[in-house]
Amino acid sequence: MKNIFSFALTSIAMSFTAQAFEPLPANPPIPADNPMTAAKIELGKQLFFDPRLSIDGTISCNSCHNVMSSGTDNRSVSVGVAGAKGGRSAPTVWNAAFLSAQFWDGRAATLEDQAKGPILAHVEMAMPSADAAVKRIKSIPGYVQSFKAVFAGEDPVTYDNMAKAIATYERTLITPNSPFDRYMRGDKTAMTDQAVRGMKTAESVGCTSCHNGPNFSGPALPAGTPFLQKFPTYSGSSYEKKYDLASDLGRYGVTKDASDKNMWRVPTWRNVAITAPYFHNGKVETLSEAIRVMAKTQLNKDLSNKQVADIEAFLHSLTGEFPVQTFPRLPDYAFSSIVEID
Amino acid sequence: MKNIFSFALTSIAMSFTAQAFEPLPANPPIPADNPMTAAKIELGKQLFFDPRLSIDGTISCNSCHNVMSSGTDNRSVSVGVAGAKGGRSAPTVWNAAFLSAQFWDGRAATLEDQAKGPILAHVEMAMPSADAAVKRIKSIPGYVQSFKAVFAGEDPVTYDNMAKAIATYERTLITPNSPFDRYMRGDKTAMTDQAVRGMKTAESVGCTSCHNGPNFSGPALPAGTPFLQKFPTYSGSSYEKKYDLASDLGRYGVTKDASDKNMWRVPTWRNVAITAPYFHNGKVETLSEAIRVMAKTQLNKDLSNKQVADIEAFLHSLTGEFPVQTFPRLPDYAFSSIVEID
Repeated sequence: MKNIFSFALTSIAMSFTAQAFEPLPANPPIPADNPMTAAKIELGKQLFFDPRLSIDGTISCNSCHNVMSSGTDNRSVSVGVAGAKGGRSAPTVWNAAFLSAQFWDGRAATLEDQAKGPILAHVEMAMPSADAAVKRIKSIPGYVQSFKAVFAGEDPVTYDNMAKAIATYERTLITPNSPFDRYMRGDKTAMTDQAVRGMKTAESVGCTSCHNGPNFSGPALPAGTPFLQKFPTYSGSSYEKKYDLASDLGRYGVTKDASDKNMWRVPTWRNVAITAPYFHNGKVETLSEAIRVMAKTQLNKDLSNKQVADIEAFLHSLTGEFPVQTFPRLPDYAFSSIVEID
Repeated sequence: MKNIFSFALTSIAMSFTAQAFEPLPANPPIPADNPMTAAKIELGKQLFFDPRLSIDGTISCNSCHNVMSSGTDNRSVSVGVAGAKGGRSAPTVWNAAFLSAQFWDGRAATLEDQAKGPILAHVEMAMPSADAAVKRIKSIPGYVQSFKAVFAGEDPVTYDNMAKAIATYERTLITPNSPFDRYMRGDKTAMTDQAVRGMKTAESVGCTSCHNGPNFSGPALPAGTPFLQKFPTYSGSSYEKKYDLASDLGRYGVTKDASDKNMWRVPTWRNVAITAPYFHNGKVETLSEAIRVMAKTQLNKDLSNKQVADIEAFLHSLTGEFPVQTFPRLPDYAFSSIVEID
């Protein structure tokens, strides 16, 4: 392997060992400064589902990261307040807790950091400032009570604590026991023959050079260290033009470092069969086409129809079990503190 | 009592007996042609939460009738697709199953009829036709399977069956065991002294002439017979102008019958403490002000501050228990049948 992509991978592989095929652990890493508690999870769930966190009260975290389905909105780009469209496709929130950095360009080190972004993004939830979001939360008495119960301090309703609660809830959004996981734990009937063939094909073709580890998003790097690859690695393919793959410069937008042009975080394969459309711009509608595009742009390979179908069957075996969750009860509007959102 | 309002009430009271104070029954009326089954409830819940029932995939039933909170959106008027605003405030879906007609003007006889409205309303979910909605549902394989399992016939994915499933789910949205209900069943500690005083005041002042029966929305009339009253009954109050109470002609818009001008369905008092803002146009923000407005416009009475506070305490005692519900799993997008919603 002689391309820039494999070179980058090799240098990382020296310090971090990643296996191609591992089952999903039951629990993701938990930051020392944000331990999980039942009350914090519940508060985070309320906040995750509360559209009052958006400027006009129409958009919640769940609007674009729908945990009743794929953890995405299955759109090319998301729709925020007043019909605003985002620039990139919403990544799934399922198993995001296993990623070493958040957002397509890895610009947030933690789920806590990530949660602070969309609330203030003008094409998403469009709050004008963290203070405005805190003021909105404080206008809802039930939240003030819950923040006091969950967090210490004189004035516990803070933007940081809001993000901590949301991240804590998100760390419960894990999908174990996919057919692949059951297969890896010894149940050889859990995957179809085609899926097993596809697993081997994905490895032999080279897909798992990047899509490895338990989340198929690369090695378990320290928080804040995104596992990045260049996309497209092999430039000039017909796919690049057809799907506009290169005009968004990815990580470069964060660092302004020329070496980060078109560098992207390697996304998870977990539940990928249900998170269409694909890639950072959501321009590829089907999983089979996504497989072809990746083989060509990342490995310079044209796969046969059989190879594509087999890999696709394998990827379907990575759809996990979604935990049964109860609805949160959102804190009531008090008649004395109506939030003005019209 | 000599006004048109009491005359209308008296004529109805001759055939239907309604008690001022009754606890909420455990179950609402169930139409003979749409029996409740667990599978139908679950399908209805999926549909209720699925934004793919709107033209651009952004609005679900739950967007405006949020069952994680008050069953409303707590807005003056709702926000539909592309930021469109509706003409009236969203009524709560909680306990709607007890109403003899749906919508503020009672134009739908049943929850089934009601469910067919917002999906096609251009300021709400904006599907161009029932056929378009059916086509959308058919593009999602999981729904096709579920409709087949729940409904009979060769081609069970129909707009009627969709409405039947949603209505079935809605009949589970009952909030029993409010402090008032517990008080009525014998627990005299369930209501505060002030709330008990307010209950008596509401009756002596005349509020319960209309707001009676177990749902405080009038007598149990046959399905399709809305319990209507004129609002404002006493025209010309300062409130009428301040809150623009008379410009929407209510039932008249449905029947074009002059006697239906400004006639409205009597709304429930159940959970009214958390469904602000109030009235068909949502222009009154607080419960205390809503009480003053109603006393003046319907009974021509100016209540004292104490009377208002007592009635308000009573209305707070009508907030019930919200059943614990699990999230539905929305049927997956299949990679072969992406719904194009951008």
